Amino acid sequence: MVNFADKLTNKIKETGNPTVMGLDPMLDYVPASIRRQASLEAADPAEAAGLALYWFNQQLIDAVVDLIPAVKPQFAYYEQYGVPGLAALQKTITYAQSKGLLVIADAKRNDIGSTAEAYSRAILDQTSLGESASQSFIGADCITLNGYLGIDGIKPFLDQCLKGGQGAYILVRTSNPSAGDLQDLVLNDGRTVYEAMAEKVAQWGQDLIGQSGYSSVGAVVGATWPRQAEKLRQIMPHNLILVPGYGAQGATADDAVASFGPDGQGAIVNASRSLMLAYKKQGLPADDFATATRLEAIAMRDDLRDALKRAGRAIE
Amino acid sequence: MVNFADKLTNKIKETGNPTVMGLDPMLDYVPASIRRQASLEAADPAEAAGLALYWFNQQLIDAVVDLIPAVKPQFAYYEQYGVPGLAALQKTITYAQSKGLLVIADAKRNDIGSTAEAYSRAILDQTSLGESASQSFIGADCITLNGYLGIDGIKPFLDQCLKGGQGAYILVRTSNPSAGDLQDLVLNDGRTVYEAMAEKVAQWGQDLIGQSGYSSVGAVVGATWPRQAEKLRQIMPHNLILVPGYGAQGATADDAVASFGPDGQGAIVNASRSLMLAYKKQGLPADDFATATRLEAIAMRDDLRDALKRAGRAIE
Repeated sequence: MVNFADKLTNKIKETGNPTVMGLDPMLDYVPASIRRQASLEAADPAEAAGLALYWFNQQLIDAVVDLIPAVKPQFAYYEQYGVPGLAALQKTITYAQSKGLLVIADAKRNDIGSTAEAYSRAILDQTSLGESASQSFIGADCITLNGYLGIDGIKPFLDQCLKGGQGAYILVRTSNPSAGDLQDLVLNDGRTVYEAMAEKVAQWGQDLIGQSGYSSVGAVVGATWPRQAEKLRQIMPHNLILVPGYGAQGATADDAVASFGPDGQGAIVNASRSLMLAYKKQGLPADDFATATRLEAIAMRDDLRDALKRAGRAIE
Repeated sequence: MVNFADKLTNKIKETGNPTVMGLDPMLDYVPASIRRQASLEAADPAEAAGLALYWFNQQLIDAVVDLIPAVKPQFAYYEQYGVPGLAALQKTITYAQSKGLLVIADAKRNDIGSTAEAYSRAILDQTSLGESASQSFIGADCITLNGYLGIDGIKPFLDQCLKGGQGAYILVRTSNPSAGDLQDLVLNDGRTVYEAMAEKVAQWGQDLIGQSGYSSVGAVVGATWPRQAEKLRQIMPHNLILVPGYGAQGATADDAVASFGPDGQGAIVNASRSLMLAYKKQGLPADDFATATRLEAIAMRDDLRDALKRAGRAIE
């Protein structure tokens, strides 16, 4: 069984690209031609929406499958379309994995121990249906978590990662403007709350360090805060870092580079809207969205590689 | 449009009972007779599981509908059964609301602003499907949230509460053993992290205070920490408090009472396993689970009322 950090590191080396594509679709991102076709095949508008989202995602995946190591569907975007939306999420994940991509389930789950076990079954593993049957809902390679409840709510996922080779990214310093409301509060020992969380992540990930030198337990650190990211990389030298905030949220490749290790590994930069909606930026018709996404993915890859070179952290 | 805090306060006065029943089903809680019937009607084991969970929940709801004001389904327990599980969640919520119960969606969602909007549509409101159609997934009366990301991730829910009369409980001091890992860290001004979060909740809820004197923006404060709860009630005099930890997690009614206001209102105590699995405690056959749950709900109501009386906070 291969450790998630090793799987991801290998895929990044193979593609030469530390990008994860966010798959956070809204129905109005999908070209009218696809929506029309979905309406013809579906029984009702909700089912048509689910079908349209799935086909949209399929084409996005096909457009970049040789270029990127992983995709990151954000669950809210599927939940908002109800059961047909969640069926689209499920099919999207199965499709991405069938093409060899790693899937990071961006669910930010958090709860007490017994409930965290149920989430771990739902998103990383499977659930017994009695007798010989079992149900796999998401079966992702990795999940995002919120550590506010402490180790109880994290442990079931760590156990699953040890057993099944998955990974988990825990929120440390998020990319949004109000991240500091709670995360920047200063403790009586001089650390910030997010630094304290980073120390927990370093500790929780100790048993899951792979041959790459990185742990399958990682941290979410927004590219929008490069100075904090430099410090967090020092606190968590062996943890994977998931870097949101590049592109639509305003951070540059140079900002994102702060989260990489000295070997140019250990981090992956997310882009969702800037990749999915590249056709708008490029002034192309919606029907050309997949081509536009491919061009944007190449540009982002080159942008990150150049920034890593400038920072002396080039991917080997 | 009635404010959620007022709706809940009225329902608690009407039933004389500040209990919320957690609906966190596992398939092996469900009597064999119900599971057998579900297998006959369903196309496959996963669909049978969803049907069995729904029927189990229906009977639990029927057993206590005149006794309790609200139910709280925990999403993990449905997600682990995949799309059929989520369909059971949806039907359970519709059924509970049709019987006049308030529904607190225990989802502990958290994300950046644009994603929080999608979660708010999914769980409290509805999503446009273009033209004239829209999709309502959960349509709950209230949601639980995690505030680690600050106001950005909370604001979309507050806006929805103002617009649609729903409520939100934000995690402050959770009931689990490792709650203190992060929440008990002491800041340089002497406050703990959970007290800082409580102050945010008090502030975020200011525009949603109803005629009851309580805000629709509440806090989760575990009954397992009564001393902290006393202090938190002072920091948040106008916020609803959701109190987990009674029963299976070991807290008593006297512990739970610390979260109530001086008027005996403003809090609701959750019990999940102790109500759902009352037949085990009472040594009754599984087929009598609904009767056992009713008896346990009456005992819990009386237990809470007695404790409130002892504390001089009797419900008017």
